[in-house]
Amino acid sequence: MPAEHELVLTRLIDAPRHALFRCWTEPKLLKQWFAPVPFTTPVAELDLRVGGANTIVMQSPDGQEMPNKGTYLEIVPDERLVFTDAYTGDWMPRTAGKPFMTAIITFADEDGKTRYTATVRHWTADDKKTHEEMGFHPGWGQCADQLAALARTL
Amino acid sequence: MPAEHELVLTRLIDAPRHALFRCWTEPKLLKQWFAPVPFTTPVAELDLRVGGANTIVMQSPDGQEMPNKGTYLEIVPDERLVFTDAYTGDWMPRTAGKPFMTAIITFADEDGKTRYTATVRHWTADDKKTHEEMGFHPGWGQCADQLAALARTL
Repeated sequence: MPAEHELVLTRLIDAPRHALFRCWTEPKLLKQWFAPVPFTTPVAELDLRVGGANTIVMQSPDGQEMPNKGTYLEIVPDERLVFTDAYTGDWMPRTAGKPFMTAIITFADEDGKTRYTATVRHWTADDKKTHEEMGFHPGWGQCADQLAALARTL
Repeated sequence: MPAEHELVLTRLIDAPRHALFRCWTEPKLLKQWFAPVPFTTPVAELDLRVGGANTIVMQSPDGQEMPNKGTYLEIVPDERLVFTDAYTGDWMPRTAGKPFMTAIITFADEDGKTRYTATVRHWTADDKKTHEEMGFHPGWGQCADQLAALARTL
């Protein structure tokens, strides 16, 4: 049963868990799949520890930058990655706008492939609705396809 | 320099770090100091792991119960404990009311005693003000004295 205010995207990907985890945690790889083409990801700074910050900047084709700042909550190599925009690093509350979401990314073995699941939780029904209307399903879906294509080459 | 929307309480306590950490993490001990007397703490359920929930119920002299539910973000034995009410456990966003605070409790050696510091951060200036007006300084101060008295007996 999904939690309250939760959005879920899942894919069965023909690549090992380790390759998918690397795509999420190595800046050089993350930049190659994180933004839905034709958007790009010029900046990815990932302080991969509990309480560490991640700063990921996406860029639109006309050059507009969209920065995302978050903090890692839980890191289980090749299995699970949890982060939120409620903090900007070292438990500093995000004060530019309220906390919006928490993402739980899991990688599990399934039929010789990897079950990839992105669970995104929100604090309010409005925020979930906003995220859906921003294009959560097509957006995260396209990125999951890009992620899968990259991971298969590793 | 304090972070934005931050309240800090600090004490030099004549007890070892380990004793103070135990008072914060063992339910039987926490119940003895956590609420400012004559309030009591009838319930303390502490799932002491990153992402684990804590449920602490305080009770007023006339029997009114005040439940506090949170999640541990970081645990460094005898040094540091971080928790927030933004989650109710396993990264479930608190949906009954918005996230209010994040507490960073630290224990450091100082002159043969322990420097005890409780740093409490809020997402908004209003929440910080509310917490101050609820009596943060006298309340957490009285509890710190109760904590110190208990820790000295361990």
